[in-house]
Amino acid sequence: MQIIQKKSHVLTMALALSGLALGSLAAAADVKVYPYSGAHLLAGQKFDLRVEVSGVTAGQEATVTLDGQPVAGLVKTNTAADTVEYTLRGTALAAGNHTLTVAGAGTGTATWTADAPTPTVQAKKVILFIGDGMSWNTVRAAELIAKGYNPANGMSNGKLEMETGLSSIASVTTSSYDSFLVDSANTASSIATGQKILVNALNVYPDNTAASLDNPRVETIAEILKRTRGVGIGLVSTAFGTDATPAAFAAHTRARGDYAAIADQYFQGVAKPDVMLFGGSNDFIPQTSPGSRRKDAVNWIDDSQKQGYTFVSTRTDLLKADTAKLFGLFNLSNFNAYVDRVQYKDPTALGSFTDQPYLWDMTSKAIETLDKNPNGYFLMVEAGMIDKFEHPLDWQRGVWDALELDKTVALAKKYQETHPDTLVLVTADHAHSISTFAGYDNTKGPGNRDAVLTYQDAKFTTYLDKLDVNGIPMVNATRGLAVGFAGVPDYCETFTSRPVFKDPTVSDGGTGYTPNPSICTEPGAYFRTGNLPRNTNQGVHSADPLPLFAFGPGAQNFTGVMDQTEIFFSIAKAMGVDATK
Amino acid sequence: MQIIQKKSHVLTMALALSGLALGSLAAAADVKVYPYSGAHLLAGQKFDLRVEVSGVTAGQEATVTLDGQPVAGLVKTNTAADTVEYTLRGTALAAGNHTLTVAGAGTGTATWTADAPTPTVQAKKVILFIGDGMSWNTVRAAELIAKGYNPANGMSNGKLEMETGLSSIASVTTSSYDSFLVDSANTASSIATGQKILVNALNVYPDNTAASLDNPRVETIAEILKRTRGVGIGLVSTAFGTDATPAAFAAHTRARGDYAAIADQYFQGVAKPDVMLFGGSNDFIPQTSPGSRRKDAVNWIDDSQKQGYTFVSTRTDLLKADTAKLFGLFNLSNFNAYVDRVQYKDPTALGSFTDQPYLWDMTSKAIETLDKNPNGYFLMVEAGMIDKFEHPLDWQRGVWDALELDKTVALAKKYQETHPDTLVLVTADHAHSISTFAGYDNTKGPGNRDAVLTYQDAKFTTYLDKLDVNGIPMVNATRGLAVGFAGVPDYCETFTSRPVFKDPTVSDGGTGYTPNPSICTEPGAYFRTGNLPRNTNQGVHSADPLPLFAFGPGAQNFTGVMDQTEIFFSIAKAMGVDATK
Repeated sequence: MQIIQKKSHVLTMALALSGLALGSLAAAADVKVYPYSGAHLLAGQKFDLRVEVSGVTAGQEATVTLDGQPVAGLVKTNTAADTVEYTLRGTALAAGNHTLTVAGAGTGTATWTADAPTPTVQAKKVILFIGDGMSWNTVRAAELIAKGYNPANGMSNGKLEMETGLSSIASVTTSSYDSFLVDSANTASSIATGQKILVNALNVYPDNTAASLDNPRVETIAEILKRTRGVGIGLVSTAFGTDATPAAFAAHTRARGDYAAIADQYFQGVAKPDVMLFGGSNDFIPQTSPGSRRKDAVNWIDDSQKQGYTFVSTRTDLLKADTAKLFGLFNLSNFNAYVDRVQYKDPTALGSFTDQPYLWDMTSKAIETLDKNPNGYFLMVEAGMIDKFEHPLDWQRGVWDALELDKTVALAKKYQETHPDTLVLVTADHAHSISTFAGYDNTKGPGNRDAVLTYQDAKFTTYLDKLDVNGIPMVNATRGLAVGFAGVPDYCETFTSRPVFKDPTVSDGGTGYTPNPSICTEPGAYFRTGNLPRNTNQGVHSADPLPLFAFGPGAQNFTGVMDQTEIFFSIAKAMGVDATK
Repeated sequence: MQIIQKKSHVLTMALALSGLALGSLAAAADVKVYPYSGAHLLAGQKFDLRVEVSGVTAGQEATVTLDGQPVAGLVKTNTAADTVEYTLRGTALAAGNHTLTVAGAGTGTATWTADAPTPTVQAKKVILFIGDGMSWNTVRAAELIAKGYNPANGMSNGKLEMETGLSSIASVTTSSYDSFLVDSANTASSIATGQKILVNALNVYPDNTAASLDNPRVETIAEILKRTRGVGIGLVSTAFGTDATPAAFAAHTRARGDYAAIADQYFQGVAKPDVMLFGGSNDFIPQTSPGSRRKDAVNWIDDSQKQGYTFVSTRTDLLKADTAKLFGLFNLSNFNAYVDRVQYKDPTALGSFTDQPYLWDMTSKAIETLDKNPNGYFLMVEAGMIDKFEHPLDWQRGVWDALELDKTVALAKKYQETHPDTLVLVTADHAHSISTFAGYDNTKGPGNRDAVLTYQDAKFTTYLDKLDVNGIPMVNATRGLAVGFAGVPDYCETFTSRPVFKDPTVSDGGTGYTPNPSICTEPGAYFRTGNLPRNTNQGVHSADPLPLFAFGPGAQNFTGVMDQTEIFFSIAKAMGVDATK
C-alpha cells in the first residue's frame, strides 16, 4: 500500500507539471493560456480567452484550436516583437471537457471542464453572508460571548443563529492562483466565479501587460444571473464600497486598489446591482469633495440618482426608503465597529457619522427592495469589519462585528421560513490566526499574564451579566476571554478592549514597524516580539479553514470539506443556473 | 426584536441559576445532587446517585424522592457532623423527564432527561478515531503538507482521507463541568458518557470527599455495549496506556493521574477491553521493574496473560498475533513521534524501542481481532501524540502524527467499504491554539522572520518533492509552512523542526519557567515573550472547535454544530443501543 501511495503522489506531481509547463516541450517559446489549464467553469459562463506565446522569432504565427477546430474571432494583441498574443473576449464553453491547442510559434495545450446547466431550480433567491476573516475560531469566540455555558453544570446555553437550524454544514479551504495564502479579493472572486485567482485580483486571469483593467475576465455568479434570468442583485457591506468583497461580485481588475474603476463598474458593468449599501463614499464622490480618493469629477451620488437609484446616507433615511433601486453610503470609509457604534460611542471614533445603520437594517431593506423583482435575487451581505479589526489584533471589535452578523443571520433565517424559495448561506472569505486560548480576569487589570486563566482556572465568563440595547453582551466583562493570534508583528499586549481603536504598530521610519507607543504606554501593556516579517504592520490572513452554514433549498450542495471555488458551482446548482441562455 | 432577544438572555440566566443553586431557597443548608441538574442520559445508562446536604444541624435527616416516589437503596455516607449524604450506586433512569427532590435537612431539586432506547441498529461496529488536540486548523496543516496545491494554477491536489468520501461532517464544541476550557480527561469522558465532567476527571461526577476513586460514576458507551450486547471493546493509542483518552472509555476516577488504578480498572472493570494496544508499559509493570510508576507488585503483563490475553511488545510480534484478546505495550511511555520513528530515526530519541508499530498496524490488528466477536465491536483509536507535541509548540511532530492518523483512516474507510455495518468517526477531544499563518523559506536559515512568507510571497510549498517510505512528505521541505500558536509561554523561536525533540521551557528554579537555553542557543533562535501565565511551561488547550468526519451507517446522526456530549448520544443512536437491557 505504501508504494501505491507514493506513486499516487508522484502522479499528482506529474499532472501538476504538465499543467504548469504548457509548451514546455517546445524548444524556446513559452506558451500561456487563460483560462488556466485545469480550469473548471459553467457551460455558458463567459470568459476572455487569452493566449500568450513569448520568446518567438519575429513574424512567427501561432494557430489556436479548440477541440480540433480553429477558434474564430481571436484578436491579435502582440505587445512585443518576440511575442504572439491573441485575445477573444466574452466567449464561453459548451458542457463537457475541452482541449485548447496552441501550435506554430509555440506549442501547448490547456484542458478545461464545463459543467452542464442544472435543470432544477432549488432556490430562486440566495442570501450569501460573508464574514470577512471569520474562521471557525472567530465563530466560536462569538458563540462563547453571546451564549456560553451554564456555570451550574457546564452545559451549553445554546449556539449562535448561524449555527442552529442548519440544513447543511461544510468546512471550506482557500488558496490563490499564485499562493496557498489568500486575500479578500481572490477569495471572494473564487466564490463569485469558481476560479483560482491571483492575490489582489478581482475576477480576472493573469496576463503579460502592466495594465490592471485589461486582464482576461471571467463572469461572476451575479453577472450570470442578471444576464440569464434578470434577477435582482444586492451588495451590502460594512466596509467601504469598493472594497474587495463587494467588488468581487460586480467588478473585474488585476488590482483591487483600482477603487474608482470599481465604483464605475458598479454602475456601468454587467451586474449593475439594484441594491448597494456600503460604508464608504470616498470612491463615489468627485475629487473636489473632502475625503474623495478619485482623480476625476465623477459623482456617483448624483449620477446614480439619474440612473434611478434612491440614495441614502443615514439609518433614518434608509429605513424610510421605498424603491426598487437603492444606493447607500453611510460613512466616508468603513463603518465604525459595532462596539464603537453601540457600546463605546466615543465621539472621536464616530465623528459626524452618528446615524449609521446596523448590518441587519441594511440587510432587511435590501431584501425588501430586491423582493420587488419577480425573478428572484442574489444578495451578498458582508460583515466586512471582522477582518479589518482582526488585522490590527483588536479581536474584540472583530468578534463583536461577527455578533452583529449573527443577529442579521437571524433575520434572514426568519425570512427564509416564510420564503421557502430562499437559500441562506453563511461563510467567510478567509481566516485569521485567531484562537480563544484562555480566559481573562479583568479585575486583575490590563496586560497581566497572571490574569490569563487556563483550564479549570478559567471557569466561566460573565458576558451575559450585562447586555447592550440589542441584547449583545457588553465588551468589558469582569471575566472574559483571552483571545490571541498565532502570527503577529512586534506589538504591546494588554488583553483588554480600549474605547477608541489604536493600530498595533507605527512606522519605524524605515521599511519596518514598531509597536505603537500609544499602546505600549497604557497601564500594564507589555512588549511581545512577533513572528511576522519586520515589514509587517499587522496580523495576516492564515491558511486555516472556514465554516459554511446553509439553510433552505439547495443546501445539500454544501457539505463536507469544500474547496472555496466549489461554492460557486453549488450556488449555480441550487439556483438551477443555465449560463448558456 | 431587540427586547425579545434581551429577555431570552435573561431567561437563560434564570435557568442557569436555578440549575446552579439547588436548595438556594433553603435558609442555611446547601444541597448538591449528582448527576447534576440538567443532566442528559440514556434510559438504562448506569450512574451513581449522590446527594450531599451540608450546613445542617447534627441529627437532621433528608428525604430523597424521584418523581414523587422515595428512592430505595440509598446508603447514608455522612462524612461530617453537619452533613447529610446519600449514595446509591449503579442505578439508572427510565426514559423520560425526571425530578429528584431533596427535602428535610435541606431542600432542592434536580431535573434529568433520559433518552429512550433507539430501536434501529444502523451500525453494528464503530471505529472512533480521536486525534488528541486535532483542531480544524491541525487537520488543515496536515492537508497542506500531504496534498497542497498545483503550483500551475493553485488548484487543490486533493484532500486528506479523513476529509473525502464523507457521509457526514460536523463541527464540535467542548466544555467542562467546571470551566469553558477542557482537558483530555473530561473531553474524552464527554464523548464516552454524554456528561459534562470536571477538568482532570474520568467518567465521574464531583463529590465532597478528597478520595478520587469513590466519586459517583457514570457508565461509558463501551461499558454499556459490553453489558447489554457483549460486543468486543478495543482501545488503541500512541500515548501511554493509562493516559486520559483511552482511560475515558474504561475507567472512572476524579484524578486522571491515578495511573495504577486506571491500569487495574482495565482488567478488573466492566469494559474489560478485548484489545488494548498502547505506548506505555510504566503503569502495568511492578514497582521493581525499571521505569515503573506503580507502588505495588502488580504485573499486568503477566496477569493479562493469565486472563487469556496475548501480550506483544514489538511491531513484529503484533503483526504475527492471532488471538481474540490482545494486549500490547510498545514503549515505556508514549510512542515516539512519527517523524522520529520514520524520518529522523535518531537513536537518542528511540533508545531501545526500534520496533514500534505504526498506528495503522495497531488499528488493522485491532479490527482483525475484534472481528472475531459476532456481536460487533467498539474500537477507539487515539493518535495521542498530536496533542503531546502541540503542547511544547513542536507543531511538526504534532501534525505529522495527524498524517499517520490519516493513513490509518484510509485503512478504516477501505474496511468500511467491505463491512457496511461499520460506522467510522474521526474527531478530536479538544483543540490547541494552532494556525498556519504563513509559509517559511528554509533556504534562508532557521529563526529568520524575513523568511516568513505571507500572501503571494508564500507561493506554494515543496513538501511533495520528497516523500518517506510511507509516502508521507519529509518534514524538512525547502519551502514549508509557518505554523504557530496564539497562546504561548516565553520561548525561543526557530520556525524549523529539530532532529531530537526539546521542551520549549525549563524551570526558572522557582514557580516559573524560562525558555529552554538549549533551544535559545540554536542558530537563529530568538526570544519571544509569551502571553500565558509565567507558571505555564508549554502551550495550552484552546476553546476552539473541532472537526468530526463520519463514514457509513448512522453518520447522519453527526451533523451541524454539536456539543461534544452529543457524540455519545449519536453513537448510541447509530448503534441502536438499549441500555435498559
